[in-house]
Amino acid sequence: MKVSIGIDIGGTGTKFGIVTLEGKVLYQGAIPTQTEAVFADYIHLLSNEIRKGLDQEKHELIGIGVGAPNANYHKGTIEHAPNLRWKGILPLAKTLEDEFDVPTVVTNDANAAAVGEMIFGGAKGMKDFIVITLGTGLGAGIVSNGQLVNGANGFAGELGHTTVTYGNGRFCGCGKRGCLETYVSATGIKRTIYKLLADYTEDSALRSVSFDELSPEMITKYALKGDIIAKQAFEYTGRILGTKLADTVIHTDPEAIFIFGGLSQAGDLIFNPVKEHLELNLMPVFKGRVRVISSQLQNQSAPIIGASSLIVDKLKKDEISIDVD
Amino acid sequence: MKVSIGIDIGGTGTKFGIVTLEGKVLYQGAIPTQTEAVFADYIHLLSNEIRKGLDQEKHELIGIGVGAPNANYHKGTIEHAPNLRWKGILPLAKTLEDEFDVPTVVTNDANAAAVGEMIFGGAKGMKDFIVITLGTGLGAGIVSNGQLVNGANGFAGELGHTTVTYGNGRFCGCGKRGCLETYVSATGIKRTIYKLLADYTEDSALRSVSFDELSPEMITKYALKGDIIAKQAFEYTGRILGTKLADTVIHTDPEAIFIFGGLSQAGDLIFNPVKEHLELNLMPVFKGRVRVISSQLQNQSAPIIGASSLIVDKLKKDEISIDVD
Repeated sequence: MKVSIGIDIGGTGTKFGIVTLEGKVLYQGAIPTQTEAVFADYIHLLSNEIRKGLDQEKHELIGIGVGAPNANYHKGTIEHAPNLRWKGILPLAKTLEDEFDVPTVVTNDANAAAVGEMIFGGAKGMKDFIVITLGTGLGAGIVSNGQLVNGANGFAGELGHTTVTYGNGRFCGCGKRGCLETYVSATGIKRTIYKLLADYTEDSALRSVSFDELSPEMITKYALKGDIIAKQAFEYTGRILGTKLADTVIHTDPEAIFIFGGLSQAGDLIFNPVKEHLELNLMPVFKGRVRVISSQLQNQSAPIIGASSLIVDKLKKDEISIDVD
Repeated sequence: MKVSIGIDIGGTGTKFGIVTLEGKVLYQGAIPTQTEAVFADYIHLLSNEIRKGLDQEKHELIGIGVGAPNANYHKGTIEHAPNLRWKGILPLAKTLEDEFDVPTVVTNDANAAAVGEMIFGGAKGMKDFIVITLGTGLGAGIVSNGQLVNGANGFAGELGHTTVTYGNGRFCGCGKRGCLETYVSATGIKRTIYKLLADYTEDSALRSVSFDELSPEMITKYALKGDIIAKQAFEYTGRILGTKLADTVIHTDPEAIFIFGGLSQAGDLIFNPVKEHLELNLMPVFKGRVRVISSQLQNQSAPIIGASSLIVDKLKKDEISIDVD
């Protein structure tokens, strides 16, 4: 049976899976990301863990797909990732190719999520769509003409760093101020709760919670109970995302925008204001034409399936047969 | 010799040319756009004018490319163009195919300019770039992965209608307020002159000019003479364009942004503030990586060459030989 390996490298943990070309996870595992001081040692450790799941008689390994922070699709490298201990430019694809001797495709996690949505999720058959991932930050993967938009430097789709507020916006880890992800992300909505607690005098259960303790799940829970500050935080977050997405729609004219990740689990609390303010700000010709929907790859294995889908996508491009035996 | 026809349909005039596959204009002509009450009569009139230049012995007609307002690339139609007398959906490609019996490709003028830049201009060999056209409005053509981004509805790249000012921005012909083209276009800079004349008390030669008389060429002339209002208008226009382009760069990560059309003739007056405010607002990873340059197709025949390039681009996609004999 033909299989690919999907790897999702995060700041703390690395997850991997052996996945069929139809998106079924046959085996999965995880290791901590940063125990090794030398990058090559980490890859060697990871490779040994992956081999435990590879059955040489049953599995024909076709390729490896990796979602990683600050990944350069064109070069197969991780470049200057602030949340990894290894500095500079890391030859990720090459090191994995040396271990497994199969083609390896590397991109950032939001791009991997977009390809996953296209190959295995709700974007099957779509040629123009966008996936927004709401995690610690805001990532995006843009697909146009059925292809992932990578850009000249491999950094296209970093929509978390479009600007919401010029001049005196919130400080962002990227060095700019007023970036979208400082408002719209797990961290962004926490900052908004604290802004609202500062601005208003309303009672709120969240007045007894420290910034470090506060989580999006907690904000969702209290919003559903009617906490006015928590509800207002979703309204504020959704309004900013919807408003900015109106500009994004004009760029690539997507058929749908998929929202993926923690905050999207809040359902109508976040989707309603996003849809309302997107429509309000759309150029008339686009009104009513763009669907905003939840990702259909919302489960624990989604990042692994997304990463593995990079190989299925590559095979399609290379026009190699992907018949499953 | 293999030739294509390039047609540029404007609100008042229609220009056409017979163009070699290397971009050389062999013959050109023009007719007024809206003398005929019936659309098919206009196409018939245009076709007869074109036939005057076609030499059946020398020319082998390969296809027709058209740049037109509100053009739908996917359907080959003009849809609800506010500045044309024919209402509804006009079957542009089909009517021309009936006349000439060759494939016809239709898109808006900014997209045609982008393909022209890729095939015959400064974007040769580039896979990711953007062309901004500054005319009465602001148009844009986005190329990613070497392909024009058309989008699900065929309306991608309408960057003139991204939002600069929410709530109380300038009124736009599209029905929205605060659109980029109400600030950055030939009309936009005229509106800015009048705003500045209202806001400031400085002397200016432009105080004796009516809105209807005022032209971008006049503003350029006075700015070069040191008129403070005219100079400030270019600074204001360039600041807004540069600032908004920083968001655009994040979407598709272009290698270069080409500026085409009337306002770009003002040179440093407009390019300097655009470059300065683009760099100021870029996400750090893009700083210093995006060139802002003047289009290399700046002449009277550019729209015709751009339109004809749609056919060369189509031939390349279809993998038909485009050897020139």
